[in-house]
Amino acid sequence: MSVWLDKIKWNDDGLVPVIIQESGSGHVLMHAWMNRESLELTNTTSKATFWSRSRQSLWVKGESSGHYQTIEKIQLDCDYDTLLITVKQEGGIACHTGRHHCFFMTLEDENWQTNEEILKNPDDIYK
Amino acid sequence: MSVWLDKIKWNDDGLVPVIIQESGSGHVLMHAWMNRESLELTNTTSKATFWSRSRQSLWVKGESSGHYQTIEKIQLDCDYDTLLITVKQEGGIACHTGRHHCFFMTLEDENWQTNEEILKNPDDIYK
Repeated sequence: MSVWLDKIKWNDDGLVPVIIQESGSGHVLMHAWMNRESLELTNTTSKATFWSRSRQSLWVKGESSGHYQTIEKIQLDCDYDTLLITVKQEGGIACHTGRHHCFFMTLEDENWQTNEEILKNPDDIYK
Repeated sequence: MSVWLDKIKWNDDGLVPVIIQESGSGHVLMHAWMNRESLELTNTTSKATFWSRSRQSLWVKGESSGHYQTIEKIQLDCDYDTLLITVKQEGGIACHTGRHHCFFMTLEDENWQTNEEILKNPDDIYK
């Protein structure tokens, strides 16, 4: 029943890196980690559920912000150790800073330039 | 001069995960790791250069296959611990299996289905 989970090469901490990509736009929204339980939950609930390494707990993306990610496709790579998950992003905001995605700093002349608009004030997201 | 490198939160092994996305198509091609030296080389040479964890050595993507990745954009995320790099993929093949990208297994009814064409036989790539 969980043969598909056994195929994954979990790292020493029992985790795999996960790339979250938005369907339609193709934007890479964020990068996070899943353990076996969070991936199984992600698949059964169709809501992206991660493992928070800082809090050492399951983390349903959107549980406090409302910015859930609805699963459209789960893909595994040639090394069986990374997932690419295509989602519909609720609210169009994936980043806790209120931006569309997390990769908002771009390297220009050896400086990180912030060039992505804040769509909603985090104080209004997490209240 | 290397302040931009100091801003990155390298993990305990001195590495950061790197997502490689193809410019134009937006396809996520692969996921790999960089250390400080490989990122600096990537930026100065404009060729994606990774740290191979299995070989514990620098790895210029394409050095044996010819499938180099030319850098178009380097982005850093909100946690300063993941890179998203946009590239032009030489030969249209990023995966060592001869496929366009590495995420060629899709979860369908709790089975991983391979659904991405092999564009070139690996024996003909690595000879």
